[in-house]
Amino acid sequence: MRLISLITDFGLKDNFVGLIKAVILKINPKVKIVDISHLVKPQDIKEAAFILKSSFYYFPKGTVHLVIVDPGVGTERKKLLVKTKNYFFVAPDNGVLAPTLKKEKPIKIIQITNPKYFLKPVSYTFHGRDIFAVVSAYVAKGDRLERFGKRIDTYLNLDLPQLKIKKNELIGQIIYIDRFGNLVSNIDGITFNNFVKNKGFKIFIKDKVIERLSYSYQDVAGFKPLAIIDSFGYLEIALNSGSAKDYLKAKEGSLVKVMIN
Amino acid sequence: MRLISLITDFGLKDNFVGLIKAVILKINPKVKIVDISHLVKPQDIKEAAFILKSSFYYFPKGTVHLVIVDPGVGTERKKLLVKTKNYFFVAPDNGVLAPTLKKEKPIKIIQITNPKYFLKPVSYTFHGRDIFAVVSAYVAKGDRLERFGKRIDTYLNLDLPQLKIKKNELIGQIIYIDRFGNLVSNIDGITFNNFVKNKGFKIFIKDKVIERLSYSYQDVAGFKPLAIIDSFGYLEIALNSGSAKDYLKAKEGSLVKVMIN
Amino acid sequence: MRLISLITDFGLKDNFVGLIKAVILKINPKVKIVDISHLVKPQDIKEAAFILKSSFYYFPKGTVHLVIVDPGVGTERKKLLVKTKNYFFVAPDNGVLAPTLKKEKPIKIIQITNPKYFLKPVSYTFHGRDIFAVVSAYVAKGDRLERFGKRIDTYLNLDLPQLKIKKNELIGQIIYIDRFGNLVSNIDGITFNNFVKNKGFKIFIKDKVIERLSYSYQDVAGFKPLAIIDSFGYLEIALNSGSAKDYLKAKEGSLVKVMIN
Repeated sequence: MRLISLITDFGLKDNFVGLIKAVILKINPKVKIVDISHLVKPQDIKEAAFILKSSFYYFPKGTVHLVIVDPGVGTERKKLLVKTKNYFFVAPDNGVLAPTLKKEKPIKIIQITNPKYFLKPVSYTFHGRDIFAVVSAYVAKGDRLERFGKRIDTYLNLDLPQLKIKKNELIGQIIYIDRFGNLVSNIDGITFNNFVKNKGFKIFIKDKVIERLSYSYQDVAGFKPLAIIDSFGYLEIALNSGSAKDYLKAKEGSLVKVMIN
Repeated sequence: MRLISLITDFGLKDNFVGLIKAVILKINPKVKIVDISHLVKPQDIKEAAFILKSSFYYFPKGTVHLVIVDPGVGTERKKLLVKTKNYFFVAPDNGVLAPTLKKEKPIKIIQITNPKYFLKPVSYTFHGRDIFAVVSAYVAKGDRLERFGKRIDTYLNLDLPQLKIKKNELIGQIIYIDRFGNLVSNIDGITFNNFVKNKGFKIFIKDKVIERLSYSYQDVAGFKPLAIIDSFGYLEIALNSGSAKDYLKAKEGSLVKVMIN
Repeated sequence: MRLISLITDFGLKDNFVGLIKAVILKINPKVKIVDISHLVKPQDIKEAAFILKSSFYYFPKGTVHLVIVDPGVGTERKKLLVKTKNYFFVAPDNGVLAPTLKKEKPIKIIQITNPKYFLKPVSYTFHGRDIFAVVSAYVAKGDRLERFGKRIDTYLNLDLPQLKIKKNELIGQIIYIDRFGNLVSNIDGITFNNFVKNKGFKIFIKDKVIERLSYSYQDVAGFKPLAIIDSFGYLEIALNSGSAKDYLKAKEGSLVKVMIN
């Protein structure tokens, strides 16, 4: 038994995801498929990259992670199959794997080229079904990686917003907003703790100031903003019993500033 | 083979549900997971309780029902594992199980405390992944219930809107609205029939009056409101070919009054 | 192992889909269930028919396709079980299977009447759970088709918008719009190619003119409309990096005209 996980921007109304599963299960009836998300914003490679990076390591060893956010479908963009110590990744070469492969080093990178692994005919607009699903199903079956194409050394990188760290000031930004309106910043918990150490600090977001970390969403009065290291491992701005996004009118890109007192 | 069913307010965009499944399948690769709903309104314990109560008994004996609507995550609220004659239930102790456990009596209630069943480290904000998913996976594997924590006798109750029954008047309210805009009341079919017996009656909802029960949605003219005992077993106000919610401008809490002629 | 695929208009918030799966797995624990879509527009038989017709043939031989868009639930409308060369289909007799059965001829049509295959009691409003799910589970288990009811010869047809083909003019219309705002017309690729052959042509949609076919969404400048044979096999109007639906203010029913130069 192997798992295949799915991250796509295909939504849930159209038949796109169902057809990917049909193609996979036709080839490999024993595989289990786990949906991570199909509601990535259309063509938003950075969002898919963040979701993958925050998810892949919870899966059993040997899981094939299939990521299809593919604005370049039908162009000359490469199609990647990557093996790391614990996982396989299948995706278009558009940067979507880059943040993950910084945490989980690639052992082998294959450019998928072998038309034996393509449905006939390959459509112009849906390589997710006609190529990536087929490849994932056979990888989960144990086909040797070299059969899918040729080894290459590189993959496309992804430009992500960087932290600015000065002596007494750490500036990040909101990079993801979840269903509850919680604002996830790009300041990871370890960087935050190393920066703050045991000193006093203030966190600035929009026109609000937060002066301590919380350890639950009910740790402050109702409808008050709070800061917490969240389940992604990042500094998150949240609201007890409400949406920090709505309350603060924050969005992706909104600045989060930490200052030492 | 065992089933685990899922009811959460995690939505479908974030990776929360996918990670719960990853954690479960890593521990227990043979289990099957069935989504009941992940679109419970954020932190709406009553809605989750209604969905569970209307769903659990359709599942095979031995199913583990995992319910995660958990505004108190990270606080001192208890974590419950309950065994009944036919099922297991895993949920935070916030009342979400109460209406179900009135129908399906608990045989054993365990307060989950054994850290061997926690991921390390446990996050502050996502016990669904770090505790409840782990526990559900091992319960489905057959671990002895006493290993998860200590036996307790009680669980938190839930305040639900009650029916008012007078001599010739039965007053309930809308407690759930489905995708089609059908208005589900808290008047169950048995109570309705016992109250009305073979007498004439009128049902009042907003400014409309309905004078009989229907036996299909097409039983009245198009765009007319009707009353029907629905698939939940409750008196429901619906509209042929449309949304009763929109047509009547009704919402949760809107009164439904039955009067004997 | 058999597959059951699901197409419904039940949405993802209510417990309807979860209960269908519970009923199926209680009867047939080994079957795998693949969701194609549960977001068919409420009671939109044509949309469900299009999704089924574009999906069924990607599934493994022997798959049971269960389609529940059932505005006539509880009325005298028939309940169908159809066997074709490669698949089984279970659905209300309201035309939803008709376009599919034109491509994949029925070998046996059964009107489901045997109450042994009904849950007791059958609700007035949810035959998906109480009848169709049960039947699908037993079909996937291999029960003889004649046990479910009596053989019949016909099924309800579905009135779909037809192409108008004149000497130099081919007129179709938009019949489906996907998550990305791509506009799928009812002009299939083969008809288009036979009509155009190697002549020059213009495609008219709303106030725009497109003069060639593209072979990827990035084949034209950003935010320009393009025409492409899509993964459904139809002529599709799309926009590079955006939604053709929003850009062109098009909707289902909008005309698409192909003229030979």
